[in-house]
Amino acid sequence: MTWRATVLTLFPEMFPGPLGLSLAGRALEAGLWSCRTEDLRQHGLGRHRAVDDTPFGGGAGMVIRPDVADAAIKAADVPADVPVVYLTPRGRPLTQQTVRRYAQGPGVMLLCGRFEGVDERVLQARGVEEVSIGDYVLSGGETAALVLLDACVRLLPGVMGSEESGVEESFSEGLLEYPHYTRPAMWEGRAVPEILLSGNHAAIAAWRRGQAEETTRERRPDLWSAWLARKETNRAVAVGGTAQTGQLGV
Amino acid sequence: MTWRATVLTLFPEMFPGPLGLSLAGRALEAGLWSCRTEDLRQHGLGRHRAVDDTPFGGGAGMVIRPDVADAAIKAADVPADVPVVYLTPRGRPLTQQTVRRYAQGPGVMLLCGRFEGVDERVLQARGVEEVSIGDYVLSGGETAALVLLDACVRLLPGVMGSEESGVEESFSEGLLEYPHYTRPAMWEGRAVPEILLSGNHAAIAAWRRGQAEETTRERRPDLWSAWLARKETNRAVAVGGTAQTGQLGV
Repeated sequence: MTWRATVLTLFPEMFPGPLGLSLAGRALEAGLWSCRTEDLRQHGLGRHRAVDDTPFGGGAGMVIRPDVADAAIKAADVPADVPVVYLTPRGRPLTQQTVRRYAQGPGVMLLCGRFEGVDERVLQARGVEEVSIGDYVLSGGETAALVLLDACVRLLPGVMGSEESGVEESFSEGLLEYPHYTRPAMWEGRAVPEILLSGNHAAIAAWRRGQAEETTRERRPDLWSAWLARKETNRAVAVGGTAQTGQLGV
Repeated sequence: MTWRATVLTLFPEMFPGPLGLSLAGRALEAGLWSCRTEDLRQHGLGRHRAVDDTPFGGGAGMVIRPDVADAAIKAADVPADVPVVYLTPRGRPLTQQTVRRYAQGPGVMLLCGRFEGVDERVLQARGVEEVSIGDYVLSGGETAALVLLDACVRLLPGVMGSEESGVEESFSEGLLEYPHYTRPAMWEGRAVPEILLSGNHAAIAAWRRGQAEETTRERRPDLWSAWLARKETNRAVAVGGTAQTGQLGV
């Protein structure tokens, strides 16, 4: 079945854009996913097809009207089980787990904001999920939508070949990945770490694990703390489990 | 002066892509920034212009060779003060602070990986900054590069008009933004919060602050903890400061 992406945007010509090429582009041609846009401007009001207005309570910027956003959502006419996602720095952070959930479903409808944002009432009335791709501000939701779609599409069945697979491990254990090395073995006086040439698979796995831990500790104290806490919990569970088995054995 | 973006990629046709339209597109036409690509494939080896090879130590996927990446970096020929950034989930998280640093500089050179990644040695030899736009996996660095450039370009002098400004507050205080409301005042039986129509600026500001705190607490426990800790420190500093001033006044 085709996974359906529907994008509500003031710039429909941005889609599929970069996703029309490479891995996502081949999958699009193969019909593994589809990419449809709904132009917010088409639902604008009056002669100028206005989509936004000044914020109640004052302040800089313009806000997209609830009636306009809602008309676009209705016109897009996607099945009720397709999540409606609004890309905003106010959202919950996008994680690989969320990406997997979207990829396993029928598709997503993405609402791309511009200016200050979208009227809060339409987000509440339509059960919109607010998602942030990171702690930075974009000129609109469109590049964020491309990122979210790229992340989802690569996980769809049949999209990744062996060449692209394996990367998934990055977050599967909550650690950053170990560093990679390829030919030439010596480059500009820099040798590949000797252990990687040893053929000793256990030693290589242990070295890579150490590197992953070290990199995570150094670059991502947040992930590192969470990983340590999880490890502690798992150990407690394992100890508890052993004790119980022992009791059962008595 | 023109802010210069240089992108090293296997898919140069993805750029400027969506950044050729809207805010970034107008700024590109106005010469406020430039977008140049360097095709990694042009620096590939042999008849097939191979850019990658299997990883030393085994494992799935392919790794971009250090000599190929380095040849592309050299061919791009950017001034030494331009940061070289590799987009990877192994990187330090991109923040608005980092975006500001890049926007204030002469430009950026972005290395877009594909497959498993890039040989570690070239990253070290060339002082490459590893940056992650979020905790999810993409098919390549290209959509991440578009996000990073979008975030930078909107901050360049002359790019944002009054219509687009103001959004900056999102992270400036470490809190998520308050919700936005615009016309109509009543939509589908949903009224705009009365306080926003009161004209009482102090009360509106207090309400918005409360909403920002509530949303942050609920959606971003990480930002909320950091914000509480900072508030505590500031209070301590303020108390200390008052005491010292008092002593000086004695």
